[in-house]
Amino acid sequence: MNAIADPATDAAAIARAALEEAARAARAAATFLARAPRPVKDRALAEAAAALRSRQDEILAANARDLAGAPDLTDAFRDRLTLNPARVEAMARGLEEVAGLPDPVGRVLAEWTRPNGLLIRRVAQPIGVVGMIYESRPNVGADAAAICLKAGSPVILRGGRESLHSAAAIHACIADGLRAAGLPEACVQVAPNTDRAFVGAMLAAAGLIDLIIPRGGKGLVTRVQQESRVPVLSHAEGLCHTYVHEAADPAMARSILANAKMRRTGICGSTETLLIDRAAAAALLPQLVADLRALGCDFRADAAARAILPELKPATEADFSTEWLDAILNIAVVDGVESALGHIRRHGSEHTEAIITQDESAARHFLDGLGSAVGMWNASTQFCDGGEFGFGAEIGIATGRLHARGPVGLEQLCTWRYHVIGTGQIRP
Amino acid sequence: MNAIADPATDAAAIARAALEEAARAARAAATFLARAPRPVKDRALAEAAAALRSRQDEILAANARDLAGAPDLTDAFRDRLTLNPARVEAMARGLEEVAGLPDPVGRVLAEWTRPNGLLIRRVAQPIGVVGMIYESRPNVGADAAAICLKAGSPVILRGGRESLHSAAAIHACIADGLRAAGLPEACVQVAPNTDRAFVGAMLAAAGLIDLIIPRGGKGLVTRVQQESRVPVLSHAEGLCHTYVHEAADPAMARSILANAKMRRTGICGSTETLLIDRAAAAALLPQLVADLRALGCDFRADAAARAILPELKPATEADFSTEWLDAILNIAVVDGVESALGHIRRHGSEHTEAIITQDESAARHFLDGLGSAVGMWNASTQFCDGGEFGFGAEIGIATGRLHARGPVGLEQLCTWRYHVIGTGQIRP
Repeated sequence: MNAIADPATDAAAIARAALEEAARAARAAATFLARAPRPVKDRALAEAAAALRSRQDEILAANARDLAGAPDLTDAFRDRLTLNPARVEAMARGLEEVAGLPDPVGRVLAEWTRPNGLLIRRVAQPIGVVGMIYESRPNVGADAAAICLKAGSPVILRGGRESLHSAAAIHACIADGLRAAGLPEACVQVAPNTDRAFVGAMLAAAGLIDLIIPRGGKGLVTRVQQESRVPVLSHAEGLCHTYVHEAADPAMARSILANAKMRRTGICGSTETLLIDRAAAAALLPQLVADLRALGCDFRADAAARAILPELKPATEADFSTEWLDAILNIAVVDGVESALGHIRRHGSEHTEAIITQDESAARHFLDGLGSAVGMWNASTQFCDGGEFGFGAEIGIATGRLHARGPVGLEQLCTWRYHVIGTGQIRP
Repeated sequence: MNAIADPATDAAAIARAALEEAARAARAAATFLARAPRPVKDRALAEAAAALRSRQDEILAANARDLAGAPDLTDAFRDRLTLNPARVEAMARGLEEVAGLPDPVGRVLAEWTRPNGLLIRRVAQPIGVVGMIYESRPNVGADAAAICLKAGSPVILRGGRESLHSAAAIHACIADGLRAAGLPEACVQVAPNTDRAFVGAMLAAAGLIDLIIPRGGKGLVTRVQQESRVPVLSHAEGLCHTYVHEAADPAMARSILANAKMRRTGICGSTETLLIDRAAAAALLPQLVADLRALGCDFRADAAARAILPELKPATEADFSTEWLDAILNIAVVDGVESALGHIRRHGSEHTEAIITQDESAARHFLDGLGSAVGMWNASTQFCDGGEFGFGAEIGIATGRLHARGPVGLEQLCTWRYHVIGTGQIRP
């Protein structure tokens, strides 16, 4: 018997009870949602989009309360948290776009007949209950709700504390959509508890939650990866490489590298490190650096690169393992494909790497030698995106080895089951 | 500073160091094995099979040492541990069969072209380093080694302590095969440490091991599922149901149920519970019970079944959640498909369930409503097996929601990556 109350233990117990109640409601809804026909799911999404538009004033008022409640935010954080009419409209359109995508549930993924006449069919099926853990962008919750709903999996949304009122107002619109379509409201739930312990309860909920998807900074994702007892689809970082091979077309290399590094420096598919073949470096590196410098980029270069351009700042070993998410490019000179692959294995995050070359056999060698989720040949690493892949929507990017790799869209959010159809067969 | 040596901590540290060394060697081999062409892998398997045959005497002598070292085994355990010339020959043939299967690595799983001309290809790729944890059957190690090798993933084998000498002798033959084919010996390693702490070290090795596969009793598998920080493919039990619908063909129901329960009672796909529609029970249940009783089966029945056959033993609620793996059948009377699905959700293990019916819409309803990895219509649950599915070989059965479900063969032991092939595209 312990007579001294422990507030941390109490908070954990309260969070666990709240999570269990939400997860059980989600599990019950899952059985229903897994069998919901496409028009029902699409109607819920369309009605939720309509509610986002008609209840825009409420949403913006809730968002203003969130902003007022957190006066000490950085400008970047404040920008991520802020909603305006254009952003609400973008959320509504996002829901409608998901409604327009094909239903991933029930697709026949493979089918064959055995010599004994058994017909075996592999059929796409919802994963079950998803737990979505994200930070300050309120639209992440709306996007995730739409994708999970269409993929037939109830979701429990746990956004950042700072966006509490915004999340509740958006959730009210999604609940309108669910009710209008006759779907259980437990298909999309907002964490009933803003305590940090609720995240811990989600991560411990093996058997209650089937999949956790974290979206946010490296700190959040790494914590989830390390603590979760529930399977996780995620990427902690995108330490992407662009490798300029000696047989690269120089104009193509300049165009792709500038895009891969500088189009948007803050996304996970942006290039952090340029690898360049020694044979190409003397002629090409000065041009590549001049292009990027004109766009505002800074550099961290190894000794061989600095032998060509001594004004570049020296790179430490740690720099090559740093995801800058900023206008900074690491540069290393390498000696061919194996040398580039070796650098990527030491420093990369198995996200996306590109080779620029006109030599097909070098490109094959590079692509086959990568362990990364995505390998590109003569294209910008910034193409690693569900929309650019044609998935229509994505809930995240995965760099683990199991289930799904690369952009995670509706199809990747499904699992499968087998239907075995016989005529009375028994096993000999 | 703690001056008192703690043997448990020491054992854990030693096991962790041993595991890390093995896993690093496996990781280095993975890069090589992932790119090994099919003939090289097949040669290793064929040479290993030849070595098993030519070194049969050594293997049997090692097995005799294991048996002599463990005099207090149960008969069943002793049988699982025992090798003889027929069992060694079966292992060798198993390796040759895997060599005869198509290479799962490098298959193009999907391919499409985007409006901007990017060609996107989803390509099958090895998972990485596999950790296999099993119990007393020495052949499990040989089978797992063959499947992992063919699927391009190095494996660390951790069998039961009782089979230590047998495992080492079999491993020596596999090492012969690897050497003959020019593959790194670290492609297949036996745990260098028989301490129980080595299993703990494997389960903690996130980032070093990519996938853990446990094969054995519920205790082992449940421990692995609960403790592992590494993704796991497994099933802790197969609590399979056969549901005899009111529109079942009586002769087919009798034939299938007898096979599903009694063909082999100790495998995970054997039926543990008969669900029978109230409308069919009075006429059919006496026949079904008489058939099974003649085969030596005993019963645990609910009140409605005992109203028809009062001599049946009553079932407790716990019985319906018990995987007997024996000649015992639970019997529950249900009221239609939803009632059967409800029973399965409460008591099942999401492994394999069958419906026997001539009514197609009832069968669809049942199959669509299941969460289980495998749903069967008019076939025996004992067909849940990689060989019966046409996979040629299986490393286990998975009942989780992610990656692979049902029998895990060569294809399911692969992950994928994307190849994105451009002509200089940059992202707008």
